[in-house]
Amino acid sequence: MRWRIDLGYDGTDFHGWATQPGLRTVQATVEDAVGTVLRLPSAPATVCAGRTDAGVHARGQVVHLDMPDEVDIEPDRLLHRLARVLPDDVHATAAHPAAEGFDARFSALRRRYVYRLCDAPTGPDPLIRRHVVAQRRPLDAAAMEEAAWMLIGEHDFAAFCKQRPGATTIRTLLRLEAERHGSLVNVTVEADAFCHSMVRALVGGLVAVGEGRHHPDWLGGVLEAQTRDPHVTVMPAHGLTLEEVVYPDDADLAARAAESRRRRDAPAP
Amino acid sequence: MRWRIDLGYDGTDFHGWATQPGLRTVQATVEDAVGTVLRLPSAPATVCAGRTDAGVHARGQVVHLDMPDEVDIEPDRLLHRLARVLPDDVHATAAHPAAEGFDARFSALRRRYVYRLCDAPTGPDPLIRRHVVAQRRPLDAAAMEEAAWMLIGEHDFAAFCKQRPGATTIRTLLRLEAERHGSLVNVTVEADAFCHSMVRALVGGLVAVGEGRHHPDWLGGVLEAQTRDPHVTVMPAHGLTLEEVVYPDDADLAARAAESRRRRDAPAP
Repeated sequence: MRWRIDLGYDGTDFHGWATQPGLRTVQATVEDAVGTVLRLPSAPATVCAGRTDAGVHARGQVVHLDMPDEVDIEPDRLLHRLARVLPDDVHATAAHPAAEGFDARFSALRRRYVYRLCDAPTGPDPLIRRHVVAQRRPLDAAAMEEAAWMLIGEHDFAAFCKQRPGATTIRTLLRLEAERHGSLVNVTVEADAFCHSMVRALVGGLVAVGEGRHHPDWLGGVLEAQTRDPHVTVMPAHGLTLEEVVYPDDADLAARAAESRRRRDAPAP
Repeated sequence: MRWRIDLGYDGTDFHGWATQPGLRTVQATVEDAVGTVLRLPSAPATVCAGRTDAGVHARGQVVHLDMPDEVDIEPDRLLHRLARVLPDDVHATAAHPAAEGFDARFSALRRRYVYRLCDAPTGPDPLIRRHVVAQRRPLDAAAMEEAAWMLIGEHDFAAFCKQRPGATTIRTLLRLEAERHGSLVNVTVEADAFCHSMVRALVGGLVAVGEGRHHPDWLGGVLEAQTRDPHVTVMPAHGLTLEEVVYPDDADLAARAAESRRRRDAPAP
């Protein structure tokens, strides 16, 4: 039986989501915890909605895992046991059997990330410094917002992606917004899916505009060029948090998964 | 010349405010930083508004220090230099010459602390776990609020204080409020001044009520008994943050300091 587990974590002391031999990763930590609390002979394999890089945080990560048939546990009981076993930098916020056709990765309609910057000359409040990036030069959030508009919609984001042979870099950017709250500037990025390092490169492009190094129109040109631009910095990982993954109604889970698989495997244009 | 410096810090990796030989403290860190950036022969001594215990955080700590006569620096320049020298778990948010009669400790009218609890069964969001305490049993914030009212005003808070020979435990509690935001319960505590461990003991009393272990009226009885009650737990340090210290108008700084000194030295009744 397939289960869905929702997770939050402080990525500071993890080498990212994906299991790597000899390194502390969120995936291995969660899989080990599930194996331990259910007394399974081996840790079950999980599939996540967003494979976060080293240092990236999550409040709304979603995984699925296929439990052996003999597992029979109340969802609340599993959740409570996980709370006792997981270290304090990762917690499960929900756990229950998944609806028919659910796939944490391929059923997702969209992912929402927030990248947090602080441009106070004195640096960010130390209590939030692990997930907010200190920004030396002041940011013009209005200029960032203006540049952001040009990227919304379905485009080839090759300029902001690490190319992977045989895979498309066409994505649908649903939301890209820069909002100032005091000395904090939060960039919200939402898309059907992201290429590797795409969110941090998008924010890097906006920061170049926000610092006044480029006119907002410049970012539209970068997009159109469809090739990695050295003026677009990939921002540090620790400012980024995966906030939410949105799925369709239960009836549409399987169809969405089939569609995502088809599109993800499409060759680069 | 006397200067005022405003500070914020993550208390997790400090052994509290006050300098202790061989231990990492906020006071020594700040004094060393000021000595370094001003190239002083020895680190200047600071006096703070609230001597926070090990593990307690601050967003609004205030200190004063008396600079040698030869120091001549623009306030913004000092602030920028401090930003470069201070470690990332402490930052100075303001620095400027103090008004005549200013004393960080004795001129203060009141101090505001917030104690943060999370009663989600899955524990707090890992990104805020360093300054929010995981609360196992659910809290009734309305009952806490009811109990809090009984403590407002000028009272002898001996029941919530570590007794210090020859010192009064009479304080004026200006505000004690428990507010729920989702799974977070924030207790705001404001007083002219606090005895040692008083804030954490007040919160411990409220938590006993919030968990349903005692009726709200019980806390009024504890106050009246004027003796340490074993049912009142001193809560863990890491939930506590010194948020703000309020001072009078410049003209009243010296008078306020004189009055505080007189009252603080009054013998216990």
